Amino acid sequence: MKDYKPKPGTLLEHIRTPDDLKKLEPEQLQEVCDQLREFIIDTVSVYGGHFGASLGVVELTVAMHYVYNTPGDRIVWDVGHQAYGHKILTGRREDFHTNRKYKGISGFPKRSESEYDTFGVGHSSTSISAGLGMAIARDLDQSDRKIVSVIGDGAMTGGMAFEALNNAGALKSDMLVVLNDNNMSIDPNVGALKEYLAEITTSKTFNKMRDEIYDLLGHLKGAGEKMRKVASKLERTAVAAITPGALFQALGFKYYGPVDGHNVDALRRHLEDLRTVSGPKLLHIVTVKGKGFAPAEREQTKWHAQSSPFDKITGKSLAKATTGKTPPPKYQDVFGEALVELAAKNEQIVSMTPAMPSGSSLWPMMNTFPDRAFDVGIAEQHAVTFAAGLATEGKKPFAALYSTFLQRAYDQVIHDVAIQKLPVVFCIDRAGLVGADGPTHHGLYDVAYLRAVPNMIVSSPMDEQELRDMMYTASEYDEAAWAIRYPRGRSTGMDLRDGFEKTDIGKGRIIREGDKVAVLSFGPIGNYVTEATEALMDDGIDIGHFDMRYAKPLDTEMIDYVLEHYEHIITLEDGTCLGGFGSAVAEYVAGKGVAVPVKIMGVPDAIIEHGTQRELHDEVGIGPAGIVENVKKSLGILV
Amino acid sequence: MKDYKPKPGTLLEHIRTPDDLKKLEPEQLQEVCDQLREFIIDTVSVYGGHFGASLGVVELTVAMHYVYNTPGDRIVWDVGHQAYGHKILTGRREDFHTNRKYKGISGFPKRSESEYDTFGVGHSSTSISAGLGMAIARDLDQSDRKIVSVIGDGAMTGGMAFEALNNAGALKSDMLVVLNDNNMSIDPNVGALKEYLAEITTSKTFNKMRDEIYDLLGHLKGAGEKMRKVASKLERTAVAAITPGALFQALGFKYYGPVDGHNVDALRRHLEDLRTVSGPKLLHIVTVKGKGFAPAEREQTKWHAQSSPFDKITGKSLAKATTGKTPPPKYQDVFGEALVELAAKNEQIVSMTPAMPSGSSLWPMMNTFPDRAFDVGIAEQHAVTFAAGLATEGKKPFAALYSTFLQRAYDQVIHDVAIQKLPVVFCIDRAGLVGADGPTHHGLYDVAYLRAVPNMIVSSPMDEQELRDMMYTASEYDEAAWAIRYPRGRSTGMDLRDGFEKTDIGKGRIIREGDKVAVLSFGPIGNYVTEATEALMDDGIDIGHFDMRYAKPLDTEMIDYVLEHYEHIITLEDGTCLGGFGSAVAEYVAGKGVAVPVKIMGVPDAIIEHGTQRELHDEVGIGPAGIVENVKKSLGILV
Repeated sequence: MKDYKPKPGTLLEHIRTPDDLKKLEPEQLQEVCDQLREFIIDTVSVYGGHFGASLGVVELTVAMHYVYNTPGDRIVWDVGHQAYGHKILTGRREDFHTNRKYKGISGFPKRSESEYDTFGVGHSSTSISAGLGMAIARDLDQSDRKIVSVIGDGAMTGGMAFEALNNAGALKSDMLVVLNDNNMSIDPNVGALKEYLAEITTSKTFNKMRDEIYDLLGHLKGAGEKMRKVASKLERTAVAAITPGALFQALGFKYYGPVDGHNVDALRRHLEDLRTVSGPKLLHIVTVKGKGFAPAEREQTKWHAQSSPFDKITGKSLAKATTGKTPPPKYQDVFGEALVELAAKNEQIVSMTPAMPSGSSLWPMMNTFPDRAFDVGIAEQHAVTFAAGLATEGKKPFAALYSTFLQRAYDQVIHDVAIQKLPVVFCIDRAGLVGADGPTHHGLYDVAYLRAVPNMIVSSPMDEQELRDMMYTASEYDEAAWAIRYPRGRSTGMDLRDGFEKTDIGKGRIIREGDKVAVLSFGPIGNYVTEATEALMDDGIDIGHFDMRYAKPLDTEMIDYVLEHYEHIITLEDGTCLGGFGSAVAEYVAGKGVAVPVKIMGVPDAIIEHGTQRELHDEVGIGPAGIVENVKKSLGILV
Repeated sequence: MKDYKPKPGTLLEHIRTPDDLKKLEPEQLQEVCDQLREFIIDTVSVYGGHFGASLGVVELTVAMHYVYNTPGDRIVWDVGHQAYGHKILTGRREDFHTNRKYKGISGFPKRSESEYDTFGVGHSSTSISAGLGMAIARDLDQSDRKIVSVIGDGAMTGGMAFEALNNAGALKSDMLVVLNDNNMSIDPNVGALKEYLAEITTSKTFNKMRDEIYDLLGHLKGAGEKMRKVASKLERTAVAAITPGALFQALGFKYYGPVDGHNVDALRRHLEDLRTVSGPKLLHIVTVKGKGFAPAEREQTKWHAQSSPFDKITGKSLAKATTGKTPPPKYQDVFGEALVELAAKNEQIVSMTPAMPSGSSLWPMMNTFPDRAFDVGIAEQHAVTFAAGLATEGKKPFAALYSTFLQRAYDQVIHDVAIQKLPVVFCIDRAGLVGADGPTHHGLYDVAYLRAVPNMIVSSPMDEQELRDMMYTASEYDEAAWAIRYPRGRSTGMDLRDGFEKTDIGKGRIIREGDKVAVLSFGPIGNYVTEATEALMDDGIDIGHFDMRYAKPLDTEMIDYVLEHYEHIITLEDGTCLGGFGSAVAEYVAGKGVAVPVKIMGVPDAIIEHGTQRELHDEVGIGPAGIVENVKKSLGILV
C-alpha cells in the first residue's frame, strides 16, 4: 500500500477531502499543487492512465476546491479525464492506483463513485448544458449554491457547448464557465476558435489595441469639453467591445481573463472575486497540458494517456522488453494504411475525423494527402454533413469516427447521408467493448442504430484482410452508404496479401462445418469461436462456424443453409443484444416459423463498466468460455 | 391548370429558369419579386403549405439566382421550407400546386427533384457543413464555382452550424454564408444569439460606437504627427474590432451587413461585390417573415405553415364549416394539458423543448409554470443534457421532442441520461410517418435506436387515455429514463376519465381474443386493427388483438400466452421493421425455437416520401388493408 499514499510529511498526506484543504493558508496552496502533481506522476508512471490533462489543471483543481464549498457547490468537469487531481482531493486518494483497472475507480467523474462527481462524463462539450440544468434547479429550489463548469478549448468547439452558451446567456442564471485553454484537445486543436483564443492570449491584436485606445484617451485628457465627453463615452463602450472575450460577450457571458492557470494564487483570487459576480460569466485560463512533466509538455499528444509504466523523470517506457516479435498491427493502423493505398489509386477519396487523427490513425492520410484529409475539430455532426457535402460533388468520403462518438452524428447519418443515398463510407473504430475507458466509450449500439437506417450497409470484418477488402469494395460502391465497424486493439497478425480483392456484398463465409450447433459471428469477436471450438472438440462437440460479415444486407441464403443443416443457431457479436446483428438473424428466422432456436450472444442490456477488453468480454459472457457454455446449453448438456 | 400559372402579362410568366431571370434588367427585379410573392400567396392560399419563411426570402431568392450562375454555382438552403420561390424560379412553377401533396413535389429542397437543389434538407443547421464540403470539393477540382449557404438566425443556434463555422473559418475555403435574420424560427427565437443580432440591427451599441469613433477621429485630423499616427492605427484595428459581426469575425469570417433583405437592388449589389471577395464571409440580411402578407407579418408563428385554404387578403380560413362536432384533440395537446395537470401536483416536474413550443404543445406549461418550462432554441443536444442536469438535482424533466429531432440528441440520451440512469421522461411527438413533411421528418427510427439503450423504457399508448396514464406513471418512476412515443395528428376522441391511473410497466392488454392469428400492436396504429378485424369478420376470420404498450420491457408473459393459444403472430408498428418493436418480439420468439412464425409489419427499409399519413400508411401496407392482407397470407388464404 505504501506506494499509493502521498509521501510522509507532505501537506497532501493530511488532505482527504476538500475540508482538509480549506484549513490551509492561501500561501500553502502552491505546495499542495506541487505534491499533488508529484503524486499523479508517481502513480500514473506505475499504473498508467490519462495524464497530460490532469497535470494541466492541478492549480485549477486546488483553487476550486479551496474557494468553493464542494460538494454543496457543484463542479462539472467536461470530458473528465482531467479530473485525477479532483479525485485525489475528494476521498479517492488510496484508490487512485486502481484508476481505469477492472473493478477499480473510473478514469472519469462518475456519479455513483462520489458525491463530488456531479455529472458523469467521458464525451466532450456537455458541461455547460449540465451545469445550466443544475443552475436552474438551484434557482427553483431557491438555494444559493454555486455552479462551475470547466471546459477545455477543444471541447468548446463541440456544437452543444455553443448551444448551451446561447441558452445560458439568455436565461441569465448564475453560473461560471472556466475555459481551460491549453490549445490542445487530444490531437492539436484545429479551427477558428483556437486561432481566436490564441489571438487573445498572444495579445497580437487585442492587447495592442487596448493599449492604443488608452494611449489615445490619454492624449485627449487636456482637450476641450466636447472632446472629453466623446472620449469618456468612447471609453465606456469601446473598452467593453474590444475586450478579448467579444465572442463570449456576444453570447451573454461576462468575460474575465486570460489568467495564468498555473498561478494558484491568481486563480484563487479570481474565483473568490467571481463568487460575487452574478449571472453567466466565463473565466479564461491558460494552461499547459502535461505541466510539470517535461516529456509530456514537449509531446502532448503522445502523453495524452499512458498504459504502461514509465520512468518518471525521463519518460522512458519501463514496459518489459518484448520477445523481439512485432505485435500484430492495430485495426486502426490497418485502416490508416489501407486508406492511403486506396487514396493513391482513387483520387476522389477524401477523409475526415472529428479531432481524432491519432486515435483513428488518420495521420498517414493527412501526411500523404494533406488536401484530402481533414481534422474538423470536436464536431461529429459537422464531420458527417461535411462528408455528405463532399459526396454530392462526386468525392468519396471515408469518415473515420469512433462508434461511441458517431452517436453524436446519428441524425446527420440519417438526414444528410442516408436519405440522399450518398455513398459515404463510415469507418467505425472502437466498436464493441473498448476496455479501460468504460461505459461512456463502449461502442455497443452502432449495429442497432445503423441497421435501422435505409441505404446503409453494415459490415464488420473478422480479420485485417477482410477489413482491407471491405474498404476497397466500399471505395468502389456508390449505391448507398457503408459502415465498417472494427474494434479497439490489435488485429489477428495474419499474413496479408498485397493489394485488395472485392468482396461479395451481403455474403458471409463458412469457417468450419460441424454438427447440430452453428455459431454465426459478426466481426473480430468471431476469433473467440476458434478458441471455443478447440475446447469443445475436447468434449467431442463439433460446432459449425460462419463469419457472416454483414449485419445488413443479411446473408439469408447462408442462414437458410444453416437452418437446413443445424438444429441450433447461436449468434455472436461485440455489441448490444437488442436490435443488432443477432436481432437481424432472429427477425429472419422468426419470420420463417421454424423450430430452430436462435440464441443471441452479445453485450447484455446493462451498463458495462471498465476493465481490459478481455475481462469485459468474459464478464458479459461473450468470451470463449461463454461460447462453450452456450453451445452446451443449446445441446442440453448444461442447463 | 390556369390557377397554377403566373398571371398573363407578368414578367414571371416568362421565367421558367434562372437563365430567363438573367435576361432582365436590374431595375425589373423588384417587379419579379412582387409577382413571385403574389404567386406564392395565390397558390398556398388554395393548396396549403409552409408560408411565412418563403415570403421573407423572395428578394434574396431573386437576387441570388440573378447574380449566381445556378446550378453551376451552388445555393444551399438551410431547413428548406423557405425555398418555394427558389422552386418556382427553377423549373417547378407548374408543379408548385402539388407541393407537399402525395406524389407531388416536396416542400423542401430535394436532390432527386432538381439539379438546382444542391442538398436535401428539412432539419436545421446543416447548410454550412454541406456548403463547406462543396467548397472543398470545388478546390480539389480546381473549379471556380461559388458556394452560398443560406441560414436563418434560428438555425444558426444549432450547434452544428457553429461547428461548421469554426471549421470553415480555419480552412479558409471560398464560401458565402447568408444569415437571414428574421428574429424568428418557427416559434419566437430564443437565446443570446438572438439578442446579439438584435443589438446589431437596432444599433443600440455598435452603430453608436462606430459613429463615436469616426467622430473622434475627425476631431484628431488637425492634431500633431504622433496623434495622427495613433489615430490611423486605431482606425484600422478598432473599426475592424467593433464591426457588428465580431462574433463571426472571431470565427474567421469576414462580416458584411446588416442589409435590408427586402431591398432586392441592395441585395444584388452586395452579392455582386461579394463575388470578388475570397475566403469565408458572412452577409447578414434582415427580413420579415411573412413579408407582403399582412396577417402573416402580424402572427408569424401561426402563419409558419397553413394546411387549409384561406382568403388571400384577410387570411380568414376558407375551410368548410365543420358539422359542429369538435374533432378529437391532437395527441400533442393531450400531452400539453396532461403535463400541466401533473406539474400542478408535482412541483419537481420541469419541461423543455428545442424550439418547438407550438409544435409540441408546450405552451400551456410555459404559460402556467413559466419558471419550469424552457424553450432552449434549436438545440436538441443541449435540451437533453440540460434535462439530465436538472434530473441530477432531483427535478423530474419531461423533454418534449419530435422523434426525428431526437436523432440529434442520441448521444446525449445515452451518455448523459441512460448511463447515469437519470429519470428523464422523453415525450416523443411525431413518431411514425408524419405526412406532408416527408422523409426528413418521418419519425421511424426511435423505437430501434432507443430500445438498444439500457435504463430506458420504451412505450407507446394506443389512445389518449393511455397516454395520460403513461405520463402519470412515468412522472412517479425514478428507476430509469422513459420514452413515450405518439404520432402526429388527432387522438381517438374517446371519453377521458378525470385524473390519472398508474399503468403496469411492461404490461400489455388484450383487446380481443380470436382464432389462430394474433396481432400484437404497438401504439395508436393499433386502432387500424379494429377496422381490419371488422373486414376480416365479414370473411369469417376472427383474429386476436393485443395492445402491447411496451417495446421495452416487453410483455413476455403475454407473448407466452399468445404462443400457447395462436398459430401465427403479426406485429404492427408505425416505425421501421428493423430493430423496433416487431424485432423485440422476434428476438423473444426466435429464442424459444417454437414454430410460430412472426410477421413484422412496419415501415419497410426504404425512404418513404410525403403524402397524408393515411396515404403513406396504406402505401407501405400498415393500414387496415395491409393488416387484412397479412392475416390472410398467414392463414394461407392469400399467397
